[in-house]
Amino acid sequence: MRLKWKNILAAVLTGSVAACAPSSETAVKTTAATSVQSGASFETTMDAAKDSLSAQMSTPLIIPVPKDAGGGYTHEQHKKNAKLIYDAGQLYKLTGETQYADFASKAMLDYAEVYPSWGLHPAKKEQDPGRMFWQNLNESMWLLHVAQSYGAIKDTVSPEQREKIETDLLRNMADFMSEGSPTTFNKIHNHGTWATAAVGLTGYAIGDDDYVEQALMGLDKSGDAGFLKQMDRLFSPDGYYNEGPYYQRFALKPFVIFAQAVEKNNPERKIFEQRDGILKKAIYTTIHQNYGGLFFPINDAIKEKGISTNELLHGVAIAYELTGDKGLLSIAQAQNTFVLTPESRKLSQDLAAGMAEPFDYKSMRLGDGEDGTDGALDILRASADPNGLAVVAKNTSQGLGHGHFDKLGLLVYDAGHEILRDYGAARFLNVEAKYGGHYLPENNAYAKQTIAHNALVVDETSHFNGDVRIGNVNAPELGAFVNDGALKATTAEISTAYDGVVMSRTVAIIEDDAFPGPVIVDLVEGHAEGSHQYDLPFHYNGHMIETNFKVAADPVSLVPLGDKNGYQFLWKLAEATPIDGLSQITFLLDRKFYSVTSSVPDNTSIIFAETGAGDPNFSLRHEPAFILRCQSTDGVSYASVIEPHGDYNPVVEYTLDSHSHVKTVSHFETGADEFVLIETKDGRFVGLGISGDPDTSISHTVSVNGADKTWTGPYKLFHSTQEGQ
Amino acid sequence: MRLKWKNILAAVLTGSVAACAPSSETAVKTTAATSVQSGASFETTMDAAKDSLSAQMSTPLIIPVPKDAGGGYTHEQHKKNAKLIYDAGQLYKLTGETQYADFASKAMLDYAEVYPSWGLHPAKKEQDPGRMFWQNLNESMWLLHVAQSYGAIKDTVSPEQREKIETDLLRNMADFMSEGSPTTFNKIHNHGTWATAAVGLTGYAIGDDDYVEQALMGLDKSGDAGFLKQMDRLFSPDGYYNEGPYYQRFALKPFVIFAQAVEKNNPERKIFEQRDGILKKAIYTTIHQNYGGLFFPINDAIKEKGISTNELLHGVAIAYELTGDKGLLSIAQAQNTFVLTPESRKLSQDLAAGMAEPFDYKSMRLGDGEDGTDGALDILRASADPNGLAVVAKNTSQGLGHGHFDKLGLLVYDAGHEILRDYGAARFLNVEAKYGGHYLPENNAYAKQTIAHNALVVDETSHFNGDVRIGNVNAPELGAFVNDGALKATTAEISTAYDGVVMSRTVAIIEDDAFPGPVIVDLVEGHAEGSHQYDLPFHYNGHMIETNFKVAADPVSLVPLGDKNGYQFLWKLAEATPIDGLSQITFLLDRKFYSVTSSVPDNTSIIFAETGAGDPNFSLRHEPAFILRCQSTDGVSYASVIEPHGDYNPVVEYTLDSHSHVKTVSHFETGADEFVLIETKDGRFVGLGISGDPDTSISHTVSVNGADKTWTGPYKLFHSTQEGQ
Repeated sequence: MRLKWKNILAAVLTGSVAACAPSSETAVKTTAATSVQSGASFETTMDAAKDSLSAQMSTPLIIPVPKDAGGGYTHEQHKKNAKLIYDAGQLYKLTGETQYADFASKAMLDYAEVYPSWGLHPAKKEQDPGRMFWQNLNESMWLLHVAQSYGAIKDTVSPEQREKIETDLLRNMADFMSEGSPTTFNKIHNHGTWATAAVGLTGYAIGDDDYVEQALMGLDKSGDAGFLKQMDRLFSPDGYYNEGPYYQRFALKPFVIFAQAVEKNNPERKIFEQRDGILKKAIYTTIHQNYGGLFFPINDAIKEKGISTNELLHGVAIAYELTGDKGLLSIAQAQNTFVLTPESRKLSQDLAAGMAEPFDYKSMRLGDGEDGTDGALDILRASADPNGLAVVAKNTSQGLGHGHFDKLGLLVYDAGHEILRDYGAARFLNVEAKYGGHYLPENNAYAKQTIAHNALVVDETSHFNGDVRIGNVNAPELGAFVNDGALKATTAEISTAYDGVVMSRTVAIIEDDAFPGPVIVDLVEGHAEGSHQYDLPFHYNGHMIETNFKVAADPVSLVPLGDKNGYQFLWKLAEATPIDGLSQITFLLDRKFYSVTSSVPDNTSIIFAETGAGDPNFSLRHEPAFILRCQSTDGVSYASVIEPHGDYNPVVEYTLDSHSHVKTVSHFETGADEFVLIETKDGRFVGLGISGDPDTSISHTVSVNGADKTWTGPYKLFHSTQEGQ
Repeated sequence: MRLKWKNILAAVLTGSVAACAPSSETAVKTTAATSVQSGASFETTMDAAKDSLSAQMSTPLIIPVPKDAGGGYTHEQHKKNAKLIYDAGQLYKLTGETQYADFASKAMLDYAEVYPSWGLHPAKKEQDPGRMFWQNLNESMWLLHVAQSYGAIKDTVSPEQREKIETDLLRNMADFMSEGSPTTFNKIHNHGTWATAAVGLTGYAIGDDDYVEQALMGLDKSGDAGFLKQMDRLFSPDGYYNEGPYYQRFALKPFVIFAQAVEKNNPERKIFEQRDGILKKAIYTTIHQNYGGLFFPINDAIKEKGISTNELLHGVAIAYELTGDKGLLSIAQAQNTFVLTPESRKLSQDLAAGMAEPFDYKSMRLGDGEDGTDGALDILRASADPNGLAVVAKNTSQGLGHGHFDKLGLLVYDAGHEILRDYGAARFLNVEAKYGGHYLPENNAYAKQTIAHNALVVDETSHFNGDVRIGNVNAPELGAFVNDGALKATTAEISTAYDGVVMSRTVAIIEDDAFPGPVIVDLVEGHAEGSHQYDLPFHYNGHMIETNFKVAADPVSLVPLGDKNGYQFLWKLAEATPIDGLSQITFLLDRKFYSVTSSVPDNTSIIFAETGAGDPNFSLRHEPAFILRCQSTDGVSYASVIEPHGDYNPVVEYTLDSHSHVKTVSHFETGADEFVLIETKDGRFVGLGISGDPDTSISHTVSVNGADKTWTGPYKLFHSTQEGQ
């Protein structure tokens, strides 16, 4: 289908909402090591913290003069100290044992002794420097943790000690973070959130409302900047973070930690009700963006990252305190890790008491952008089963510098696995031998390129010609999102990814008796005049099992599929011709089969490829794909059914239902309305009418094999019949 | 080191101990579907069986006239019926509900009505035909299950019904399986075991000792054949089954099921004490041959196969009844599946009662062959931790038709994963599109070839020139096996794999303060005169991280590594030259790094390769390897340290210890004695003296950098020092 052609003037997502990646990631380490990974309860976490403090308390705390940049010795030592001080404060609060308070106050006094003498960090870069750390961000993180500890233990220290800690350490730092670093503090950016949260928590800890007010309202207390403004602008109204879930979980922590303090100290502010409960939404949205415990790896994402990260341990615990939603206990169970807070203890206790209920996973559209109008991340789930069939339609905006060029991209999950996958970032986090642990050159050269995704590529060029500035100002236009029992569907369109080409994609999960389970209908179109090549890649996960056409991989020679825009990283294994405009490809992953049956133009060829070309340094994982390729002078339509089926059981030794149920897929259009007709091998017909127009009162008609199919509203599932007309 | 050169005249392992694979595997399905896979207890299994019987009891049982071969309709229907009848008998025994007994007796009466009229099966092949099934083996399996059911329910049926069931069904079948099929019945072969077990169980069920006697002693009751003789000859004295664990678990079931009946009915036979408790040993040996729940995939093995298979569910339950070994409860926990027997119920109950103790995994040598003198499977485990570092040295005999040509082959496991892996069989079990689910042509062409394994290849030719008949009569000669705390080691040698080349390999797990955990020392040698090329492949699992030499994969063109003996299935990615006779290669798998540091001859090159060449039908998985290659006129020595290290944690975002601790590895020899010297980067030296001679009184001396290293016995670990002399 096609949405109305429009000149889309998407709101400019300014650089001010960007997250700064490489530095921020290493910083997370500060507190997360307290958490414990296996067979965990809150006690496991507490015991681990006690052990590490007990080991430290017998030797002097080392407080080195700042010297090294991120990852270096002084950097890591100060991070480690912050963690110890934070843990000590939490342990005192939780156990009442004064040894922990004594350790924390002694450590703060030691820092108070030296901090005032530290000027800007010697390894600072152009902007946002710290004094203890090379960048301001880490300074915020340090203060955020130590301020909480001080709040917990300050009743145990003498007035003279208080004076010293507050004046020489906490106020000194807070002043530096606020008045001393106005650019960061007032920025609508996650670094700004860390700074305002740290300063605000300092204010609560020492009882100075001025810091709190500045934190909430900006340096001049006008409300034009500060934490509340950041709450307004850094998440979309649905709680989606523009860069995607990998960065969302990082941005989340200062929001929830400081907001919780505001809630306790200034309940009249009703901070968790602000902007229609945006912070709760942001926590839930982060959770919803996982499959199998791992975040959807859109944009620059380390694929191992998931719900067990420290930020979301805090987030889930706080959300549970706020909501009492027992579904969150299921998330805590999946996290299997607790942090050193009373809220996390409560989670652990209620979980142990058997109070968990299933988390309510569901299909949802998460609008992108400050106003929610810059595209959306559309999540379709066949059911609430976290291991069930799920689809992510990446109809979002670019996502700034960490965004990938995969407009209308697709991810498919089933049975706990990625089925059609996103490469994520080309990066081995913190692995020195791999480009110092930074993003590899192949991240820009391959992972960001369109061909690396399940998204339509025109003329072997990436969307926006790979220019992030153009990408940032052009979001897709959304069609209707429907979540209606047997039919879950979404549509989007974009006219700005390529000059003169309008791309559209409709993705639906449908359920019908003709199939033993839910299947996906995927209609991808390119509308253009003039000759173009249209490549639609399916980066599948599994082993190729069968095809409805003859295909033979080249046994003695491989060459790359192309020489630029990511194509140079794909070996071309084979090229084949579908039969009568129908391509059917089946692959096997773990215990299930997956078939992709596509209606394609007659001159389409199917290319089988695998990453690993152009890769002298062994940077890339080797993963397979097949690509539907067609040269056309009047656009293209690829209508596919993506179908999980069967049961491969090599343990008990049987294999059931290894062949696709689909006999044919046909695509019809009348004007801007579309119809995908599926014929099964046992002679049943299932149809999907597609307009995508959100107006539920408009009637649509498509002529299908000579008979009119008519429906009202954006989509209509025509359940199985014995006839194709 | 080298063992003394000998003319090895290994005992001929006759074809009579072969297991027939393709048919036997599909047959296992008969009973296994009763077991349940997730969060299981015995009740889960029982409920599932009740459900499936309840569904069946409301409709007539279909007993089709035999027509189809394995996998076809009549074949599957009779298998399904046997499972229902078996389950009904077990349920009656367990619950006392007569509806189950009624179902079973009715079904047997129905079969008794038609079975006498069935001649040989129309789809029979040349030998061993059945009447209900195309092959005798399935007929045995059917009777084995139904006889047990009859034993359980016969008290509930009238004398007339008994007469009919016993005469027309059970005796008719048992006569056919024994007197009617003498070749199979008297064979020392797993098909023979199924036949004798089925006939013997029939004897117990109907109370006819004659059948039992024939089952135990052979048709003529002389003891030259039959179950007891099979017990004597089909397992080695250590309980190892010649074809490897994949076939061992299949052969196990009739042994343990019938032996258990013998124990109950004729306890005076002390069947489980026969041959020094060989059946218990066989069960334990099967368990010991797993890592991460999966069997060591040597020879033709489906890699998904492991301890949760039906055979071992029965095996573990019966072993627990016999021994009360609470370590078996840990195995049951890992199996997470129960079968419909009182013994399995007991396992489930004791497990739920928290009685489980860790299973005693340990290093062991499993002698191969009827007398235990045809080589051995040597298992080295760093600890009892089932997820700890483990090594399998394949010093076994050929293993008959399903054997692979990897003499002195190596498998390495760590952290729950395969690290250096075996390809297993090239087969998609029961997947019709993949060569009908049979072994693929690539199984012989690639998976069996030496280059597909971590084993030395001379002149790009497989061991025994790929001739299984030669392989079957030539086992390796074993050196000492030592399991001594910080040192676990084994040595073997073979002179018959190649004309004029004696290959030897010593593998050791050593522990020393110089390393944070155990590491492997691997010394591979080829002794020969004349010019040969020596390839030592390491089929690693993971992502290449760094090398101590420059290497660049070809970015624009790949060609196969060779054109025969399996080499045609490997793409050559890169070739590189080590530095100063030292190759160090680090790869990353999941959360750990693995480095292989090798002392190699000066003219060695390192080849990086990946499977997938020569594979037009997409039959192979794509897996990486590196190969040490050297052309030499006087043999070769590759001395390697295989070292797990470090911690890659992308969740909490830190990476520790990503570089190898090894600075150099050096190899010294004096006469037939060897010494491997490891220098670590922090300047410590660890040495391993190797003679391999089991005589613990003989002294050995090697000159190492000009100083003599002397020890007594087969191996000596020289713990870390600050000096290399």
